[in-house]
Amino acid sequence: MADSPNCDLKSLSPLQLFERVTEQGEKVRALKAGKAPKDEIDAAVRMLLSLKLSYKTTTGQDYQAGLPPKDLILINNGTTKEEDEDLVDPWNVQTSNAKGVDYDKLIVRFGSSKIDTDLINRIERAIGQKPHHFLRRGIFFSHRDMDQVLDAYENKKPFYLYTGRGPSSQAMHVGHLIPFMFTKWLQEVFDVPLVIQLTDDEKYLWKDMTIDKAYEYARENAKDIIACGFDINKTFIFSDLDYLGTSAGFYKNIVKVQKHVTFNQVKGIFGFTDSDCIGKISFPAIQAAPSFSSSFPQIFNGKENIQCLIPCAIDQDPYFRMTRDVAPRIGQPKPALLHSVFFPALQGAQTKMSASDPNSSIFLTDTPKQIKTKINKHAFSGGRDTIEEHRKYGGNCDVDVSIMYLTFFLEDDDRLEQLKQAYTSGELLTGELKKVLIETMQPLVAAHQERRKQVTDEMVKQFMTPRKLAFEF
Amino acid sequence: MADSPNCDLKSLSPLQLFERVTEQGEKVRALKAGKAPKDEIDAAVRMLLSLKLSYKTTTGQDYQAGLPPKDLILINNGTTKEEDEDLVDPWNVQTSNAKGVDYDKLIVRFGSSKIDTDLINRIERAIGQKPHHFLRRGIFFSHRDMDQVLDAYENKKPFYLYTGRGPSSQAMHVGHLIPFMFTKWLQEVFDVPLVIQLTDDEKYLWKDMTIDKAYEYARENAKDIIACGFDINKTFIFSDLDYLGTSAGFYKNIVKVQKHVTFNQVKGIFGFTDSDCIGKISFPAIQAAPSFSSSFPQIFNGKENIQCLIPCAIDQDPYFRMTRDVAPRIGQPKPALLHSVFFPALQGAQTKMSASDPNSSIFLTDTPKQIKTKINKHAFSGGRDTIEEHRKYGGNCDVDVSIMYLTFFLEDDDRLEQLKQAYTSGELLTGELKKVLIETMQPLVAAHQERRKQVTDEMVKQFMTPRKLAFEF
Repeated sequence: MADSPNCDLKSLSPLQLFERVTEQGEKVRALKAGKAPKDEIDAAVRMLLSLKLSYKTTTGQDYQAGLPPKDLILINNGTTKEEDEDLVDPWNVQTSNAKGVDYDKLIVRFGSSKIDTDLINRIERAIGQKPHHFLRRGIFFSHRDMDQVLDAYENKKPFYLYTGRGPSSQAMHVGHLIPFMFTKWLQEVFDVPLVIQLTDDEKYLWKDMTIDKAYEYARENAKDIIACGFDINKTFIFSDLDYLGTSAGFYKNIVKVQKHVTFNQVKGIFGFTDSDCIGKISFPAIQAAPSFSSSFPQIFNGKENIQCLIPCAIDQDPYFRMTRDVAPRIGQPKPALLHSVFFPALQGAQTKMSASDPNSSIFLTDTPKQIKTKINKHAFSGGRDTIEEHRKYGGNCDVDVSIMYLTFFLEDDDRLEQLKQAYTSGELLTGELKKVLIETMQPLVAAHQERRKQVTDEMVKQFMTPRKLAFEF
Repeated sequence: MADSPNCDLKSLSPLQLFERVTEQGEKVRALKAGKAPKDEIDAAVRMLLSLKLSYKTTTGQDYQAGLPPKDLILINNGTTKEEDEDLVDPWNVQTSNAKGVDYDKLIVRFGSSKIDTDLINRIERAIGQKPHHFLRRGIFFSHRDMDQVLDAYENKKPFYLYTGRGPSSQAMHVGHLIPFMFTKWLQEVFDVPLVIQLTDDEKYLWKDMTIDKAYEYARENAKDIIACGFDINKTFIFSDLDYLGTSAGFYKNIVKVQKHVTFNQVKGIFGFTDSDCIGKISFPAIQAAPSFSSSFPQIFNGKENIQCLIPCAIDQDPYFRMTRDVAPRIGQPKPALLHSVFFPALQGAQTKMSASDPNSSIFLTDTPKQIKTKINKHAFSGGRDTIEEHRKYGGNCDVDVSIMYLTFFLEDDDRLEQLKQAYTSGELLTGELKKVLIETMQPLVAAHQERRKQVTDEMVKQFMTPRKLAFEF
C-alpha cells in the first residue's frame, strides 16, 4: 500500500491531493526529526515523490508548500491551451468562443450530470405535463441529484426550492429573470415552498456601497422578483441583513458550515487571498445555509432534513459543491441542483451579462424604443456582410444573439424552429430576425413593468416577513 | 521624503510596517517591469531596504513576503531572550516568572495606559466614594481612554458597559468572577446600562462541542453571572447563538467590522493560519460588534455613537485593539477599556487559570471541604522549607498564591497589610496564612452558591430577553 499511492488518487480533487502531499511532507519531516530507521524514511520519501507527481499530473503545476491549487475550472475549449480557455466562477465568466462556454466540458470538470432526455421524460411523467422550454432547449442543462428529488416527490415526501440573487443595482436585466421564471414554473408544477435569498450583505462586502444602499437594492429587486408572479402563500423572500437578525436557526446553520470549512478550502474554491476581508472569507457559509430546512423553522415547523432543490446559473455551483461537501458532516441532506447556462450579452456569448453596462442587455426598465434601438444597434448578428451573401450562404444561428435570446424567450417551439431554418437558409434576413426579437421582447418587458407597478410596499413587506407558508410540516 | 522613511515609522505597528514593506516591494517590481529610469528604481530600492531594516528593528525578525508578523506580544522578562518570554493572547498566557506576567512591559508593548494614582483619584472625585479595591490594588492596572469616559460622565453624557465570557464548561472558578465583580461595582457607581456577551458560538467553533451544548453552557454560566447580583432592570445578558438571530442591528455591525478587517490582519493579531476554519477567522468581528451601541437598538433606542467601556482581562485586548482600529472607519466611537491582570492558578502565577483542571483553582461549585483541601494541598507557598528558616528569613509574598488570592478577595485593606507584613517577617506561618485564605473563600463561595440557588429559569429568561432597560435614550 505505502509504495503504490496512485491506486486511489485518481478520484481525489486537486485540493485533496494538495492536502495529502502536505501531510506526507510533514510525516517525512517528523520521521527525519525523530531519527526513524532509514528504510522507513525512504519509503515515506518515495510516497511523497509519488504524491507530488500525481499532483502535477492532475493540476499541471508543481506542488508548492502553502499554496493550494485554485479550483477555478479552467476549461480548454480549443486546440491551443493558452488562448482558448473558459473561466467560470461566481464573479467571472469568460470564454473566447463566440458560441459561448463549452457546457459539456463544464459538466465533466464540475462533476455534475447532464440533464438528458431520460431525465426530462421522467420529469414529464412525474408532473403530468410538458416540461418547461428551458429544460427542452437545454437552457437548464446540468443537475446534481435531481433523481433523488423525483424519488422523494413520487413517494410523496416533501422538498423545497431555494434560489437567490445578489442585489447589485436597482435595474435588473432580462437575463436575471431566467432562474426566477424557471423557479416559478417548478413551484407551480411541484407545488412546494420556495425561499429566495437576497445577498445584500455580499454586495456590501464586495462593492463600494453602504449597508443601507445594499438593503435598498434588495427591496427594489424583491419587487422585480415578486413581479414574476410568485405565490405569496408559498414563497418567502429574505434579505440576509434582515433575516440573519430574525432567525436563530439560520445563524446556527451558518456557524455550523463555518466550523467545517477552512480558509485553505475557500482559497481553493473561490480564489480568496490573505488580503481579502474576513467578511468575504466567511460569506460562502451564508449562501450555503438556506440549503438546510432548519434555517427556516417558521416554514418547516423546526423540521430538519427536508430535501432542498436549487435552480441557479452554473457559476453559482462552487458555493453548493462546498455546501454538499459539508452537509453530511453536519448531519444534513445534500441540496440537489439544476444548473442553467449563462445569459449572453447583446454583444455576443463571449461574456456573461453585466448589470453595469446599460447596452449589454435589455433592462426591465427599458422603454419599447430603447429595446428597439439596443437590439438593432448592439445585438450581435450571425448574418452575412451583404444581402447577396446572406441569401446565398445563410446566417449562423450558433453565434447569432437574436436567435439565442429567442431561444430563451419565444415559447412557441414551431415558430422558433421555422425562424432558425429560414435564417440558416438565408431566406430570413438579419433585420427581419431582429424585428421578431423586438416584437417578442417589447410586450414581455411591458407586461413585467405592468406587473411590477402592481407590487406594493405592503406586498414586499408580506413576502419578506418570516412566517408559515401554505404547507403543513 | 522618499529617502528618509524612518521619520514616521517609529509609530507604526509591526503589521503596518509589514504592509509598508510589501507595498514598497510591489512598487519596485512595477518600476523594474515598466523599465523606469535607473535613479527612480534605485531610490525605491533604497526605501525598500530602509523599510526592511525598520521592520527587523521593530520585530526582531527578517521580513518574509506573505508572512505577516505575529502580534502575540512576546515580552522579554529577563536577560536571555529564549527562556524568559511572556506569551499573552486570547488563548494563551504563559510566563516563566513565578511573580506572573510583567504587566508594566505589557502596557508598553500593547500601547495602553497605566491606571495611575491620578486616574484613581479622578474616579474617586467623579463617583464621590472610595474606588474598588481592584483599582486600589492594581488588579485593574491598565486602560484605554478612561479619561474620555470620565469626561462624558462629568458632562452628563451617557455611556454603557460591555463585558463577556466564553462559556466553555458548566463550572466557573472564582477567577471568572473578577471581571463581573468589578463590572457590577462600575454599574452601581456610574448607574449605566450593561451588556454581557456569552460567546457560545466561539466555544462551538474552537472546541469539540455541539451547538446545543455550547448554548446550554451559556445558560448555565448566565446563572453564575446573575448570582453576582446584577440589576435585572439595567443588564442585558445574551448568547451570540440566540441574539444574532434576534437583532438586525447586531449583524449589521458584525458585517461592517468584517468588511474592514483582512485575513492578513487577523493572522497578525490572533495567529490564525490557512488551516483554520472560516468561522474562527471571522469570529473577532462578533466580539467587536457589542462595542457599538447600534448593536442594541432595543436598549439605546436606535442611537449610535454612545460611548462603550469594556472591563476585561488584558488577554482580551487584541480583540478590542482591532475594534478600535476599525471603529473610526465605520463611523463609530472607539470603545474605552479597563484591563485586569490574570487570576493565578493555585499552583502559581506562571499560568492562567484553566477551567479544565479541577485542582487549578477554587470552583464555584466546591464544598467547604474541597476548598480547604485544595488550598492546603495545592496553593503554591512563598514560605520557607522549615519553620526555623521561615521564622528567620520570612515568607515571599511576591510568589505566594494565598497572598495573591487574598489580594483579590479580602476587602479589608488593613488586615491584608498586616498579613503581608507578618508573613514577610516570618511571624505568620504558611499554614496560618492558608487558614485565613480558607476562611475567606469558604463563606464567599457559599454565599455565591446561595445566591445562585435563587436564580430561576424565569430570571435567566428575563435577563436574556432583548428589551428596553431602565434608561432613557
